[in-house]
Amino acid sequence: MDFNIIRTGRAVLNVVDLDASRDFYVNGLGFIETESDTNNLYLRGLEEHNHHSLHLKKASAPSVEVISYKVYAEQDLDALSSLFAAKGLKTKWLEIGEQHAVGRALRVQDISGLPVEFYAHMDPVERMLQRYDLYKGAKVQRIDHFNCMVPDVEKAYNFYINEMGFACSEYTAAEGEKIWAAWLHRKPSVHDVAFMNGVGPRLHHVGFWLSDQLSLIHACDVLASMGYTTSIERGPGRHGISNAFFLYLRDPDGHRIELYNGDYLTCDPDFKPIRWDINDPRRQTFWGHEAPDSWFNEASVVQDVLTNKTIELAEPTLKQHKPTFVT
Amino acid sequence: MDFNIIRTGRAVLNVVDLDASRDFYVNGLGFIETESDTNNLYLRGLEEHNHHSLHLKKASAPSVEVISYKVYAEQDLDALSSLFAAKGLKTKWLEIGEQHAVGRALRVQDISGLPVEFYAHMDPVERMLQRYDLYKGAKVQRIDHFNCMVPDVEKAYNFYINEMGFACSEYTAAEGEKIWAAWLHRKPSVHDVAFMNGVGPRLHHVGFWLSDQLSLIHACDVLASMGYTTSIERGPGRHGISNAFFLYLRDPDGHRIELYNGDYLTCDPDFKPIRWDINDPRRQTFWGHEAPDSWFNEASVVQDVLTNKTIELAEPTLKQHKPTFVT
Amino acid sequence: MDFNIIRTGRAVLNVVDLDASRDFYVNGLGFIETESDTNNLYLRGLEEHNHHSLHLKKASAPSVEVISYKVYAEQDLDALSSLFAAKGLKTKWLEIGEQHAVGRALRVQDISGLPVEFYAHMDPVERMLQRYDLYKGAKVQRIDHFNCMVPDVEKAYNFYINEMGFACSEYTAAEGEKIWAAWLHRKPSVHDVAFMNGVGPRLHHVGFWLSDQLSLIHACDVLASMGYTTSIERGPGRHGISNAFFLYLRDPDGHRIELYNGDYLTCDPDFKPIRWDINDPRRQTFWGHEAPDSWFNEASVVQDVLTNKTIELAEPTLKQHKPTFVT
Amino acid sequence: MDFNIIRTGRAVLNVVDLDASRDFYVNGLGFIETESDTNNLYLRGLEEHNHHSLHLKKASAPSVEVISYKVYAEQDLDALSSLFAAKGLKTKWLEIGEQHAVGRALRVQDISGLPVEFYAHMDPVERMLQRYDLYKGAKVQRIDHFNCMVPDVEKAYNFYINEMGFACSEYTAAEGEKIWAAWLHRKPSVHDVAFMNGVGPRLHHVGFWLSDQLSLIHACDVLASMGYTTSIERGPGRHGISNAFFLYLRDPDGHRIELYNGDYLTCDPDFKPIRWDINDPRRQTFWGHEAPDSWFNEASVVQDVLTNKTIELAEPTLKQHKPTFVT
Repeated sequence: MDFNIIRTGRAVLNVVDLDASRDFYVNGLGFIETESDTNNLYLRGLEEHNHHSLHLKKASAPSVEVISYKVYAEQDLDALSSLFAAKGLKTKWLEIGEQHAVGRALRVQDISGLPVEFYAHMDPVERMLQRYDLYKGAKVQRIDHFNCMVPDVEKAYNFYINEMGFACSEYTAAEGEKIWAAWLHRKPSVHDVAFMNGVGPRLHHVGFWLSDQLSLIHACDVLASMGYTTSIERGPGRHGISNAFFLYLRDPDGHRIELYNGDYLTCDPDFKPIRWDINDPRRQTFWGHEAPDSWFNEASVVQDVLTNKTIELAEPTLKQHKPTFVT
Repeated sequence: MDFNIIRTGRAVLNVVDLDASRDFYVNGLGFIETESDTNNLYLRGLEEHNHHSLHLKKASAPSVEVISYKVYAEQDLDALSSLFAAKGLKTKWLEIGEQHAVGRALRVQDISGLPVEFYAHMDPVERMLQRYDLYKGAKVQRIDHFNCMVPDVEKAYNFYINEMGFACSEYTAAEGEKIWAAWLHRKPSVHDVAFMNGVGPRLHHVGFWLSDQLSLIHACDVLASMGYTTSIERGPGRHGISNAFFLYLRDPDGHRIELYNGDYLTCDPDFKPIRWDINDPRRQTFWGHEAPDSWFNEASVVQDVLTNKTIELAEPTLKQHKPTFVT
Repeated sequence: MDFNIIRTGRAVLNVVDLDASRDFYVNGLGFIETESDTNNLYLRGLEEHNHHSLHLKKASAPSVEVISYKVYAEQDLDALSSLFAAKGLKTKWLEIGEQHAVGRALRVQDISGLPVEFYAHMDPVERMLQRYDLYKGAKVQRIDHFNCMVPDVEKAYNFYINEMGFACSEYTAAEGEKIWAAWLHRKPSVHDVAFMNGVGPRLHHVGFWLSDQLSLIHACDVLASMGYTTSIERGPGRHGISNAFFLYLRDPDGHRIELYNGDYLTCDPDFKPIRWDINDPRRQTFWGHEAPDSWFNEASVVQDVLTNKTIELAEPTLKQHKPTFVT
Repeated sequence: MDFNIIRTGRAVLNVVDLDASRDFYVNGLGFIETESDTNNLYLRGLEEHNHHSLHLKKASAPSVEVISYKVYAEQDLDALSSLFAAKGLKTKWLEIGEQHAVGRALRVQDISGLPVEFYAHMDPVERMLQRYDLYKGAKVQRIDHFNCMVPDVEKAYNFYINEMGFACSEYTAAEGEKIWAAWLHRKPSVHDVAFMNGVGPRLHHVGFWLSDQLSLIHACDVLASMGYTTSIERGPGRHGISNAFFLYLRDPDGHRIELYNGDYLTCDPDFKPIRWDINDPRRQTFWGHEAPDSWFNEASVVQDVLTNKTIELAEPTLKQHKPTFVT
């Protein structure tokens, strides 16, 4: 490839009430509020040295405007533009100045219909990693990954592996060795993006990295103290897949956030992707717990990068929509 | 009162396969095996300086032989014998030598029909608290409490408070301010025994103290690695009541074990019992999760102290058998 | 004994700058500020249901006005008054209303010359244990113990054991089996008070209980972020004695605070006090680290309960002032 | 550059007693013993999927045979060979079969005289990440970095940055903005190698990654229980530089091992290296503690890759050999 995607960069989410979002993300989860105005809230984790990793925009209904990856250099954007154009996929440029704190950006509708953005520059800000006096709630460290529900995982898998240079760390196999879900990375962690079989294209969740397990447990306690018990959807638990210690939350608009710790290093070219059977009871939750139905059924709708209209949903190609535990 | 019950002492549980029990309790949970023979397994926690806090006996079917409290001195046993005799409750003496490692013991059928034992002496053994090289699994520190399901919680509550000198730390109120469950203590923790409204008398669980939250999470990981995913019944989570960070496990015979950390000091005479409404969503699980039905319905049957036959079960006096979350 | 001391209650410390104290204790360590005025700062831990456990008073120089124990009932105060009077030790009554939030109090100069107070009543306040959204810094849970440097430990030991009903959990033996230090308790933890051989009488430190080890590590990070690196005197480490995971801090007036987690249950009458040799390298710090000289040499001076003048210091009876590690 | 160094790979250390090493590394620190014979002990961390990251060889005296980096592909070795040859530095090939479990390897004496090895292949083995039942001691997860003491840090810095493609995450500046120490990485963590001003070339320590802070504290407890108190040289503490939560140990041969958790992601091309003043009291230990002199003075001697003789030591170019805290 003649471009270099570095890592998951940021999500731009539409929300209906910025004050409700601020209470949840800043007071509850401990995000740093870099900047805000009446229509925007820019948030980042404690170790992040770029302006934001979560951009919440005031809107009339919740949806996903775009999920963004950071690339190594400006020319990578042009190479990516050529790739997507060659594939007949929608592309759109946002020039410098069109987005606050972000440089020139390329937006595309990816192979699954997801609105994806690439940028090389975001304004630098002070890193708060050693401002422990500001640590609160979940003490969110940094953005880690996106998880997307798509109708055809193998199509997404092939595009990201073959055309975009991602590598696979783990995957779930359904009947006939069909790929039911896959975890793909650019930075050497388990993933920058995962694709999961389901009604889509939708954003299932944005994952944020925590420095330790107790920060995640403390987040549960803090959220419950603040009255957010219904926001705690699943966990804490351990995923068999990815070895993540996880917590799934629903923000005030229903967007799903994963707090995440565990992972391992995946930079070796001889690292063999780990295969899990979809019905292995330790795959989803290593400890055997089932996930609630909402976790399989609900996700955030996404926008068309050209029209900003909601992308229509399609049924998944694989029929099995969640694991069956035979005991 | 002219006697002094110090604390929860030990449980004597019947199990069908001692090797299966050993694998679960010693390899999985990290209990110290003080001693064993073909019919008995004596286990203790890392800080315990008495011979055992869990005595597992080989039997043809699982049941609870007795739950035991340690008293301050020998004469306390005589005073307790007088009390139970005066109340017309069954009593039975086990003289020195009749039980391995335990001194003279009084067994009674308590006001709810539970088989309860009192003893002043148990053989001393080496405390392993600072043998960190032996720490394994959940690193169980010590026995903490019993939780019993009884048909008439108020009757049990009144007997333990008024006749046996227990104090109440927290309780759950159902319709008409009826006590649906109560947490009672002698040592200044949240409880040595709790009573919960339900089909009984049955032993709901034995609680063991852990030194920290991560030991509990590690226990989940270790048990899952060993293939015990179906043993993890509920949690990890935080109880609103007692503030415990908890995990409920089912041992190979179905006996329920709670791993427990959290608690607080309750020695003050001006400590006001904390009232919880049964339908408060943060009471059971502070984070809002529901408990599985098995947690409300299943418990260990108990024996008659004179005949060793299983005590017949009675329906509870309060109709509500579990919380209803109105959302 | 015809009285019942329940537990360590509070310390009244003189400090020169209440704003400096507030920043250290409230912002840094996470104490709850119950109340304050220009001359007083009343602090408590997160689980405490009484008005305060630390009373800081504005003064021209740092010193200890009194260390206080809570007793079971009002009449215990009268019995204690008789005891101290019979021993020819100074006593003084503070009637209801003389101290904010505290009932009738007896102050005495104990056998070592330490200013000690007893009270049965302190105003109740809301317990913040489950207000996790207010947790900060070290998340201090409750007061745990006092550690006092006295010239004659055996004299203090005998008085507290024989006359005041304390029990010994652990002790340090110097040459000739002389008691160099002793850990004594009323509540069933390792200690409510410890006495250590040294120039005295002085208050070496006040110990506060934390719920877990990571809160202590986080306290180091928070204090360092706030510029308090010179306040961190010793630790984090593990004491062989008491098994405590510890951190020693010096507050802005030089008063020493211990953050403390570890401990074990000591309510059994057959618990054998644990003997440590003064030169055992794992006694002080289980991991073998030496304590800095300041830890052995520096402590807070104490006041005369009648005159409020500083009590004169005496040299210790045992010559060895700190451990010698022979390697 | 026409080669791609992926990450720190392994260290080959000479030790005098393999049984002593096994007790320390396997029983104490929880390394997995992949394989061993009378002259070799091959160890790996819990997440490692390659044969070993620490190779201990029986020898008559302790020294460092080589520190090794893994490269992306075989041809990278040839390109590296050309580079070192062109610079007039010693090189040596070890063909397939010459080293157990490792493919063709290039050994060089680097610009500072350190014995460095590159390899593309190491035999795959089972990853134990989710075999929590095998977790012990420090639960070492993976190798993280080397720290080397060299006489001329700027020379090493320039070579690794300009010729070998490393990036700098943090550095320490001495008088005149001279680089006193530098942290350099290939994988996107704080470092794969650090250079520190001092008598050299010597290996200061090998750093291993732990998944969390409590594993490090537990390691202290386990080592102390096993009698290894004198092996604990420094910590636990927090480095200002790198934000690492650290513990420094000396193995039975005096080789220094760092247990390490903290770190952050460094993959961004716009990440600005963080500058620390050598005399900043929070640089070395964020909490302000001083390191012992042994930490500055002692390190492992290294071998000539051609002769296996010990490389002669040179005095450092910068005079300041450790920080001065002006208070």
